Amino acid sequence: MNKNHNLLSPEYKHNYKIKIAYDGTHYNGWQIQPHSISIQEVIERGLNKFLKETTPIHIIGAGRTDTGVHAKGQVAHFKTQKAVDCFKFLSSANGILPHDIRINSIEEVPATFHSQYSAKSKIYHYHVHLGYVDDPFSRLYHYHFRAHLDIELMKKGALLFLGEHDFTSFSNSAHMGSASKDPIRNLYRLDIIEIDQGIRLEFEGDGFLYKMVRNIVGVLLEIGNGKRNYEDIKRIFEARDRRLAGVAVPPQGLFLMKVNY
Amino acid sequence: MNKNHNLLSPEYKHNYKIKIAYDGTHYNGWQIQPHSISIQEVIERGLNKFLKETTPIHIIGAGRTDTGVHAKGQVAHFKTQKAVDCFKFLSSANGILPHDIRINSIEEVPATFHSQYSAKSKIYHYHVHLGYVDDPFSRLYHYHFRAHLDIELMKKGALLFLGEHDFTSFSNSAHMGSASKDPIRNLYRLDIIEIDQGIRLEFEGDGFLYKMVRNIVGVLLEIGNGKRNYEDIKRIFEARDRRLAGVAVPPQGLFLMKVNY
Repeated sequence: MNKNHNLLSPEYKHNYKIKIAYDGTHYNGWQIQPHSISIQEVIERGLNKFLKETTPIHIIGAGRTDTGVHAKGQVAHFKTQKAVDCFKFLSSANGILPHDIRINSIEEVPATFHSQYSAKSKIYHYHVHLGYVDDPFSRLYHYHFRAHLDIELMKKGALLFLGEHDFTSFSNSAHMGSASKDPIRNLYRLDIIEIDQGIRLEFEGDGFLYKMVRNIVGVLLEIGNGKRNYEDIKRIFEARDRRLAGVAVPPQGLFLMKVNY
Repeated sequence: MNKNHNLLSPEYKHNYKIKIAYDGTHYNGWQIQPHSISIQEVIERGLNKFLKETTPIHIIGAGRTDTGVHAKGQVAHFKTQKAVDCFKFLSSANGILPHDIRINSIEEVPATFHSQYSAKSKIYHYHVHLGYVDDPFSRLYHYHFRAHLDIELMKKGALLFLGEHDFTSFSNSAHMGSASKDPIRNLYRLDIIEIDQGIRLEFEGDGFLYKMVRNIVGVLLEIGNGKRNYEDIKRIFEARDRRLAGVAVPPQGLFLMKVNY
């Protein structure tokens, strides 16, 4: 999967940063995989239809969202030999792409800009619907959890995740092509916001391990639901053992909201 | 299609009012039609699975929403011989129904209650997205209209629809099974609300003719877009001719929000 060699060749004179929103329902995640349809692949194929470079462009995304996970603020970059007309680009790209993937902006950036390595922090939101009856209009965009939650206990638990930790216990084994072996991450913010008939968990950190957000939400829901004591969190961190942290919540509640540079 | 004869038989001792929300994307409207799948049919089939009356129940809805139109507050009623356990009903019904149709409440009502004939007014909302790029998460719940709109002109135009009128020019010929031949309707309210990247048109009236809301929205968008003078509306009303009122906007922006009794 080493496509990056192209990016080092000297003929690439331009580097573009794009912001993307997508409904992940019908895709096998962001990253190109054999035998399944990914968002990255659909965008690359679409852009190559009208960019017509001598060799196909490759896009590199800031966050590898998983199957069924959504994005309102995914960022990617791609390098080209020819200059791109940024105004025409948006209508051409959105005219070709399926309606569940939209490119919201494009700008030329310095050659050193890399969507993933230049990122300072990422923001993810997770939506939980707590109503007795589910909402048919947001059913693909939240997790319907029909149980009483003690939000104050959850907020106490959330504090224990803040700061720099070894998040091994809260990460599933990396999937194909996942990079980092270093399990240390810094979580700057974990807010639990009460919304109409539910809660939104807002995460901001310097990076996130595979399934880390969904595993943390799973533990916090167990704390809110009285199935687990919030002081468990310390013990789980120390054990560095994924099996202690319970079950990840489903993907459809998760949104990559923003990447900060 | 005369199913109502059952409702007059003396063995029906109970009458229930239910409130329903549905995503109309995958249905051929509310009303049962041959050779296509309607919301009414799916709900009737679902309820009959566990109500187990000696003859199948029939539900009658307050508003016949069209193919692709949504509802957050559809109301229907049905009569039964046996009493229904209203608390168990909600979990049984929502356990059986597809996830894009949810029953939000049920209550027993007097035998004289009729979801359609007892209704005092109905509220419909129509959502227009005006952003340069569409939003992938609400794409099935709004009309993406990429043009500059003069909202103040539209508001002036909206005033001309208020009150009692012969709405013939704003109604398509009634579809199969559509009842009323009387084209007089009273529109109590037509508000144009500016929302994030778009507008919401709120209609409240004593009743609506077939495609009336979508035809009125079509005319108002032409006024906002400068393609039509808002004083045209008077002329269109007087002509009593559907051909003068332009094109109906697409169904996916329309929601039946509430039925007042």
